[in-house]
Amino acid sequence: MFALENYIRNIPDFPKKGIGFKDITTLIKNGPVFQQAINQLAEKFNRLGIDRVVGIESRGFIFAAALAFKWGAGVVPVRKPGKLPAKCIREEYALEYGTDAIEIHEDAIEKGQKVLIIDDLLATGGTVAATIKLLNRLGAEIVGIGFLIELDFLNGRKQLAPYPVHSLIHYQCE
Amino acid sequence: MFALENYIRNIPDFPKKGIGFKDITTLIKNGPVFQQAINQLAEKFNRLGIDRVVGIESRGFIFAAALAFKWGAGVVPVRKPGKLPAKCIREEYALEYGTDAIEIHEDAIEKGQKVLIIDDLLATGGTVAATIKLLNRLGAEIVGIGFLIELDFLNGRKQLAPYPVHSLIHYQCE
Repeated sequence: MFALENYIRNIPDFPKKGIGFKDITTLIKNGPVFQQAINQLAEKFNRLGIDRVVGIESRGFIFAAALAFKWGAGVVPVRKPGKLPAKCIREEYALEYGTDAIEIHEDAIEKGQKVLIIDDLLATGGTVAATIKLLNRLGAEIVGIGFLIELDFLNGRKQLAPYPVHSLIHYQCE
Repeated sequence: MFALENYIRNIPDFPKKGIGFKDITTLIKNGPVFQQAINQLAEKFNRLGIDRVVGIESRGFIFAAALAFKWGAGVVPVRKPGKLPAKCIREEYALEYGTDAIEIHEDAIEKGQKVLIIDDLLATGGTVAATIKLLNRLGAEIVGIGFLIELDFLNGRKQLAPYPVHSLIHYQCE
């Protein structure tokens, strides 16, 4: 077993001064480590009968696609406005200054389908909370939410109740 | 066997008037169809000892990640400028009007590693040709280039010589 946290690279002052960015490229470029991470995420949500794995743009796609492939489930992208070509629904969410929005195709999920939400990193949870709203509007049954990394000190998890959240790597402080 | 082309949705006038966009979300949301597509791509490049699968932002990530996971290979993102957090190299490429650029981390590939380039769609080939340049600068051995879809009438393939190119779905005309 690899210690996954050893494969994350910390980048100071990215994308802006004072922010320590968790670079996952050093983990995913290592084939056996990437495979282990996907298998560990899969174990957390096995036997839940997941129909579709929802990946949040764009690093979330990497983990969502590998998991979906492993299970034979579908992949559904959640993207920034204007990226998805067919009819979408949209949710806005608050940023430190102003708002942003995400979209999903309105035919991405059939009512009652079991879905898992995947992203690379849970910070304040705004994007994921908006994704939950999108999926509920489409009548999805959200069976869980998975992350490679969770920044525990930002308490993003409290926005995601009551859904089960699992993260493979936790940071207690900046 | 599913006929993959039946799962692609044509979106007229996206992202701008006169362009017929090939929407892959209708294929990837179907688990067994997505799994078949990945397995078919894998068959094309099996037994080549691929170390890393290079995915081009951002739909390319979906296919690159699933393939890499299947093989136990690493995943390497090629992205628009400013997205990758560590030290990058960059290549510019021509658009219809002006230029654009893509980047890769300079430590993404070790010299001599065998890499496969993956994207969802081959159009004029500008982004992929720039990706080839990036990978050659890093000393990668490019063993092939794979696409879900190829727009044959745009002749993008001629920019990618001498590397083996395989696409699962071909369009002869717009």
